[in-house]
Amino acid sequence: MPKIFIKNKNKTIEYVPNKDLLQLLLENEVFVDNPCNGKGSCGKCKIRLLEGKLPAISETEEKFLKQEEIHTGIRLSCLVVPQEDITIEVLQRERKHEILTKGYLPKFSFHPAIHKKVFQIEKPTLEKQDSFEDALCATLGIQKLDWRLLQHEIAYGKVTGVFHHDDLIGIESGDTTHSLYGIAIDIGTTTLVAALIDIKTGEEVATASMINPQKQFGLDVLTRITYELENPKDAKTKLQHAIVKGINEMIEDLCNQSEINKSNIYEIAVAANCTMMHFLLGIDATSIGRSPYAPVFVKSKNILAQDVGLRAAQGTRLYCLPSVSSYIGADIVAGAYVCELHKAKENILFIDIGTNGEIVLSNHGKLLSCSCAAGPALEGMNITSGMRAAEGAIEEVNITEAGIELKVIGNAEPVGICGSGILSVIKELIRVGLVKKDGAFIKKEKLEESDYRYEMIQVDGKKRAFLLKDGAEELLITQGDVRQVQLAKGAILSGFYALLKQANIAMHQLDKVMIAGQFGAHLPAESLVGTGILPEEVKEKITYVGNASKTGAYMALMSAEARKEIEELANKMDYMELGASEGYERLFTQCLLFSI
Amino acid sequence: MPKIFIKNKNKTIEYVPNKDLLQLLLENEVFVDNPCNGKGSCGKCKIRLLEGKLPAISETEEKFLKQEEIHTGIRLSCLVVPQEDITIEVLQRERKHEILTKGYLPKFSFHPAIHKKVFQIEKPTLEKQDSFEDALCATLGIQKLDWRLLQHEIAYGKVTGVFHHDDLIGIESGDTTHSLYGIAIDIGTTTLVAALIDIKTGEEVATASMINPQKQFGLDVLTRITYELENPKDAKTKLQHAIVKGINEMIEDLCNQSEINKSNIYEIAVAANCTMMHFLLGIDATSIGRSPYAPVFVKSKNILAQDVGLRAAQGTRLYCLPSVSSYIGADIVAGAYVCELHKAKENILFIDIGTNGEIVLSNHGKLLSCSCAAGPALEGMNITSGMRAAEGAIEEVNITEAGIELKVIGNAEPVGICGSGILSVIKELIRVGLVKKDGAFIKKEKLEESDYRYEMIQVDGKKRAFLLKDGAEELLITQGDVRQVQLAKGAILSGFYALLKQANIAMHQLDKVMIAGQFGAHLPAESLVGTGILPEEVKEKITYVGNASKTGAYMALMSAEARKEIEELANKMDYMELGASEGYERLFTQCLLFSI
Repeated sequence: MPKIFIKNKNKTIEYVPNKDLLQLLLENEVFVDNPCNGKGSCGKCKIRLLEGKLPAISETEEKFLKQEEIHTGIRLSCLVVPQEDITIEVLQRERKHEILTKGYLPKFSFHPAIHKKVFQIEKPTLEKQDSFEDALCATLGIQKLDWRLLQHEIAYGKVTGVFHHDDLIGIESGDTTHSLYGIAIDIGTTTLVAALIDIKTGEEVATASMINPQKQFGLDVLTRITYELENPKDAKTKLQHAIVKGINEMIEDLCNQSEINKSNIYEIAVAANCTMMHFLLGIDATSIGRSPYAPVFVKSKNILAQDVGLRAAQGTRLYCLPSVSSYIGADIVAGAYVCELHKAKENILFIDIGTNGEIVLSNHGKLLSCSCAAGPALEGMNITSGMRAAEGAIEEVNITEAGIELKVIGNAEPVGICGSGILSVIKELIRVGLVKKDGAFIKKEKLEESDYRYEMIQVDGKKRAFLLKDGAEELLITQGDVRQVQLAKGAILSGFYALLKQANIAMHQLDKVMIAGQFGAHLPAESLVGTGILPEEVKEKITYVGNASKTGAYMALMSAEARKEIEELANKMDYMELGASEGYERLFTQCLLFSI
Repeated sequence: MPKIFIKNKNKTIEYVPNKDLLQLLLENEVFVDNPCNGKGSCGKCKIRLLEGKLPAISETEEKFLKQEEIHTGIRLSCLVVPQEDITIEVLQRERKHEILTKGYLPKFSFHPAIHKKVFQIEKPTLEKQDSFEDALCATLGIQKLDWRLLQHEIAYGKVTGVFHHDDLIGIESGDTTHSLYGIAIDIGTTTLVAALIDIKTGEEVATASMINPQKQFGLDVLTRITYELENPKDAKTKLQHAIVKGINEMIEDLCNQSEINKSNIYEIAVAANCTMMHFLLGIDATSIGRSPYAPVFVKSKNILAQDVGLRAAQGTRLYCLPSVSSYIGADIVAGAYVCELHKAKENILFIDIGTNGEIVLSNHGKLLSCSCAAGPALEGMNITSGMRAAEGAIEEVNITEAGIELKVIGNAEPVGICGSGILSVIKELIRVGLVKKDGAFIKKEKLEESDYRYEMIQVDGKKRAFLLKDGAEELLITQGDVRQVQLAKGAILSGFYALLKQANIAMHQLDKVMIAGQFGAHLPAESLVGTGILPEEVKEKITYVGNASKTGAYMALMSAEARKEIEELANKMDYMELGASEGYERLFTQCLLFSI
């Protein structure tokens, strides 16, 4: 079999020549960014050929690559099917970037659903040969047990029962009441965050995070759903296995960090968007991707963790927080709960900005939500020089008469621009007038040559672009990039206005705007308002609440009462389908303008 | 790697030389009888070496083999560890022998627990984006679904719901009420029997049977439990997998015979002894094997078939009939129910003869049971020339002045003797006085040389034996064989008397003796009474009920009412531990005599 040697990973892959290079790399756990999931439409899965031959470059490929890239051996891995021994280099730097794990936490009292109790199971004798099950039921005064409990270790004498509400879920020999753990998890489309919680104290003993291993099936929810649609036979299983494997790795990690045995973990509480929740449970998510966007389920789930393949104790429960709709998932419900929107005595707007922008408006506790298809631009995807928030990513841009100032993650040489950087640069482009309110770059000829902005604009034929760094040809903000941001802004802002209108709340009546989520936490109010994603009037009302999704999972873990309230909240939250609401198209068009 | 060529199977095995030959053969699905499960204590796992070399014969091996066997290459496969290429021949003929699948069936009306109903699930719209789960719950007016139902196919519009009692367990697109199937299974230690049942008519559409695939872990319950004890790491899983694999094969077989898709099978009802039920559910059975013989469970189980690995429809239920104790299993409960012991207006004794003899006494509906450790002798095991009831097995013996008459299964040359043959020959040996009432062979010198019995006794040193066929040196009934049968007889008869005594019923008050089970069906009243397993007084009261265990499973499948009554019956049946009952040792000793 021919071989692929990936030089900068020092890794060799043997292969049967019938798959494209991207597939071969992903299957062998060599990560290559591929936002369009190998469809040949995003141009991101670049690799460099160092030795050997690849089939001749196609027109599609040529469209995405610059001449100098082609000269230095750059190819798009999803568009080439290798046939022989080659040596390549992968270009993305895959670094663990900082994942937000903490956030705002309201006061609440601990009454976890899981708890322990010591009791005595009488040993059988020849005179009283009761089965273990009968002896156990008699001791507890119950009629029925989950039969799978009987597959666990059988213990007589002094034992500790682990209960989930009133249900016995585990039996441990002796008195083990001193040790009881749970895990709170936030499954994001991009990242997973988990915290090991000491149920007896509420203490967060360890945290772990990782990139969502489903990334190999696409970077956003819709690409993964498309993957499922196109692979009806095994996609559901593969998507489930990927996420379950990831969580199991985090469980191992948490246990290693804290030197706690995973058999002491008896509940896992998960908040996630509706699609991730479907994937986790191995349930068909394709209906989420097509009109009328009805999911298979939204209700909370309380199941045996081993039934989805999670490895902790044998009787460990998995609690999945409830969603409201396909696009208002349990992550948003968790956030709304953590921010106590249901108890609010004022008007609060809660917003989680990501590939989708989810907005919840609390009108003195009455909740109305909507979801805006912002697209991945705000997360640095589908942007010419876009990248994830890793080392080398530009995260802030200042345009001054003296030139362009860049703030780069890790203080490294800039290699691309991440979401917060994109918002920052767009805000600056608008502020200095390089981009007009309709989103178009001003014509270069309208600027004097002496104007400090003159050199910042690059013209290639009819295409104009903003050069992020003098001499770095790669680092560009193109007209297309501006349009992407403009679409995201239009989507979010129109959702914002539509909700206010629906609830009959005027802008000045809005008391607070709470920004939640991994990504939102990195977006300063200046950028949000400066790009017009949020209106100028709310600038002083913005607060950040961090990873409220994981916090909600934590609260559900530590309080059965919170769990009940979260379910009630999800039940009561109204959802507004923007596309189906009157006058939305016109509102959206207005919101595209950078002036409002 | 060296190879083993099994000439008469035309099969070659490659092996790493560190296991004994028996293990290698069993792992490669070449069956070799091994009642002691490879412990080197039964001497049954003979093979013949044709070419190549095996390590020198050990003392243990020599003890079990005759000189002429050693000369013709016979070895005990569990006692040799091959090191090089060899050619061998296996000696057992593994033929599918007739397994009893039919039996007595009382009248009852059909009200199966599973049934179908057609309803309409409203399609979602942009205005009403209800999740599938919510739409389904609203249609059915229920609050909660088994979440795993959502992993199945999602269907809107006209659908057929499959219900188990009131619980929805499946959804099929369109109206499929015409098709609904179930399976009734009897899991015996030795054989499995399954019947595919058309739930709508009660008709038995197809039957299948096979040798219990757990045979490779030992032929009787205790050997398999010992295997579990000695392999705590994986025995439970292996034993479960073996039985589940077997049932899955029978399901395939039933579906092929009847051209029915297994996705139309929605319930499987199983009757089995208590140990087999533990193995099936992957539950530790070791406590059954040691005093005080308390099992882990006896209650009926109603679970998801896929949770033990059974493959039918996704929501198929598995109903396990209840047991009473470690040694009065669901097979006996099923039999007692089928024979309507709980409704009896007389005194009935129900007996299932096998490795264990289980006896249930119905005193006008009040049930008392006991179990007698008869040992495997009555099934042809641990008997010098013993074999299973397959072609070539002697099943009946008549000793006349003209000589010995043999009835052989398949009218073939006799190669061994099966259970019914053993009882038959012992009865004859007692009748003609070759065996005395204390079980000893008479001394040859006490017979005249002219006596027709003289030549039938073979003397080897001090050992006497009965020659089943003139000239066939292999076909012997030894003193040890007689002792084995004597022990079995003592065990069963003492249980019989102990029950009567406990219930205060005199022999003449006994109205009926019902013989159940695969093996019992082949034991004529003459043999049972002639060997003294049952007392002479009951000879005319004996009836045979066939495989009542499978019939009980069938009734549970076809009637929710029957299921309830079976559970009540199990609850009410008393169990008497013979070993713990007063005066039992003395009774047992008395019952060993062939005269009573």
